[in-house]
Amino acid sequence: MAVQESSDLESFAQNQVQSDQDHLPLVLVHRLPSFDIPLTPLLQSHFIVLDPHHSSHSPPNSFLYSQAQSVRALVVYGPCPLTADTIRLLPSLELVVATSAGVDHIDVSECRLRGITVTNAGDAFSEDVADYAVALLVGVLRRLTAADRYVRSGLWRLNVEYPLGSKIGGKRVGIVGLGRIGSEVAKRLMAFGCSIAYNSRKKKPSVPYPYFANVYDLATNSDVLVVCCALTSATHHIISREVMKALGKEGVLINVGRGALVDEKELFQFLTRGEIGGAGLDVFENEPDVPRELFTLDNVVLSPHKAVLTPESLESVFQLVLANLKAFFSNKPLMSVVHQE
Amino acid sequence: MAVQESSDLESFAQNQVQSDQDHLPLVLVHRLPSFDIPLTPLLQSHFIVLDPHHSSHSPPNSFLYSQAQSVRALVVYGPCPLTADTIRLLPSLELVVATSAGVDHIDVSECRLRGITVTNAGDAFSEDVADYAVALLVGVLRRLTAADRYVRSGLWRLNVEYPLGSKIGGKRVGIVGLGRIGSEVAKRLMAFGCSIAYNSRKKKPSVPYPYFANVYDLATNSDVLVVCCALTSATHHIISREVMKALGKEGVLINVGRGALVDEKELFQFLTRGEIGGAGLDVFENEPDVPRELFTLDNVVLSPHKAVLTPESLESVFQLVLANLKAFFSNKPLMSVVHQE
Repeated sequence: MAVQESSDLESFAQNQVQSDQDHLPLVLVHRLPSFDIPLTPLLQSHFIVLDPHHSSHSPPNSFLYSQAQSVRALVVYGPCPLTADTIRLLPSLELVVATSAGVDHIDVSECRLRGITVTNAGDAFSEDVADYAVALLVGVLRRLTAADRYVRSGLWRLNVEYPLGSKIGGKRVGIVGLGRIGSEVAKRLMAFGCSIAYNSRKKKPSVPYPYFANVYDLATNSDVLVVCCALTSATHHIISREVMKALGKEGVLINVGRGALVDEKELFQFLTRGEIGGAGLDVFENEPDVPRELFTLDNVVLSPHKAVLTPESLESVFQLVLANLKAFFSNKPLMSVVHQE
Repeated sequence: MAVQESSDLESFAQNQVQSDQDHLPLVLVHRLPSFDIPLTPLLQSHFIVLDPHHSSHSPPNSFLYSQAQSVRALVVYGPCPLTADTIRLLPSLELVVATSAGVDHIDVSECRLRGITVTNAGDAFSEDVADYAVALLVGVLRRLTAADRYVRSGLWRLNVEYPLGSKIGGKRVGIVGLGRIGSEVAKRLMAFGCSIAYNSRKKKPSVPYPYFANVYDLATNSDVLVVCCALTSATHHIISREVMKALGKEGVLINVGRGALVDEKELFQFLTRGEIGGAGLDVFENEPDVPRELFTLDNVVLSPHKAVLTPESLESVFQLVLANLKAFFSNKPLMSVVHQE
């Protein structure tokens, strides 16, 4: 049966290659079977696209082996983990194109060791993520999702007590990671009358907002923390128990980065014990698992890791992926290269 | 029994007056029994405050009669209707102080006929209402309340399909009523990269946004309408069936003004038939009744008329009410006078 599958695969691949009258370059898609984005048709106009999950008959690993020797460019769809083991199966690999902004699911160190360039979504998602961070912030402070539940559950008609929200203007917002997303968040919140401060690896000389060299001090001086930095070994659990304590009982935490930037277990305890004011979370440590105890809390807004997803930003990232692949195969400079620390 | 009540009232009022060693001015509170705000203690430091609903023994109407002759200033708490009939019971009335921004619940024409000045909440709530309008807008376009429901109901874990939202930036937002609230909405949405146009009674010379003389043309040229004008006979159902049709299938309607600005029956039909993209509604025609068919729609964000309510804006309006009453009793100029059309 393995032999049959293998020959199916070979004929599948052969057919693909034979249809290539223009000798288009080969691009391999790396994705989880359950995760697909409508990028493939666009790529197919310019490349021979090999997707191990495309045919339901294809056992992905055998297929990967069969194509492994010649693949120079790999596109990683969404959050699909790219491990050192997989990278080692692709001896000709020179380029990894991620469709996401964060690349914590990709073994970037292994890529560096092998001289493989990694590109990400660059700024394609920045505005959408920033919009969503602000949506979560106003959602928590002005109780938008709680208000909607209150109406839909019929409590308004019953005149059940409705707690006040909190004014956005005047809030001191600390941004953890002032890259393009953080800067867009700051721009929007300035228009609401918030004051902005930030933490990042280094002080940014061109930025007018106060800088805090560590997140603890930023939290101490903030009413709201917006976490939008990259997840690396240095930023893992950067929002620790101590930082939450510094943020305080009325403090609000917004996370649009990655779940593991926050010590989630501690956060849930802080929330359920009322030791933090509220949270707006688009990301979690073990997605799609969200601790059920959060489902009863009105001061929490929960979202299924969708801060990046609008048709407009998808189209924008698709064009960026295409541009990077085209540049690569014509030896032109790449855009949105991930610079490793 | 009526006699007994009446004498109770008289002694209650008498006690209040006798406790007034400084001959403080008299202020009457007009409110619904079920609606109270913590304004009374602040007023009591400066005035003799008569609240017909204060004592559970007081039949409000008799009490009102007993004080009617001498009352010069009336404070209307929240949405309590002030009819011509009630106004006629107060022959000395010179000032009506509303705690709300809109005064559609007050018979302003009757006040004008009798030379009674009406003041409102002025700009005390403007920023909070503008914040909330933006919250509703991002809530609908980015599906924030739907996202929260999706997570809480466990659908994420089941990998149930999740529709994309829509990017905020680039949206053409038409603001109906470019007063202080509308201007604050515009300021915020400019920071998100939206383009702004507006309709109001007259073109505003100092405003950079394109002006449309009628709402229909504004809707035709907008992706989103934000309704934040005052409710008057001229603006009743200003968002008509025709306007909704002009806004179109992808269009989104936000209402933070008054329910009756929108032809609600038509809106519900447009929504349930998918002839409009979505709606964010803080106000309804027959509050707290919200048509139940809306409760099943994911493209609608519902809120219990709470756009104005934060502790900060309440404090701000309390200070404004106090300042107006003090100015009135010292013959100084009033703030936030409602100028009648």
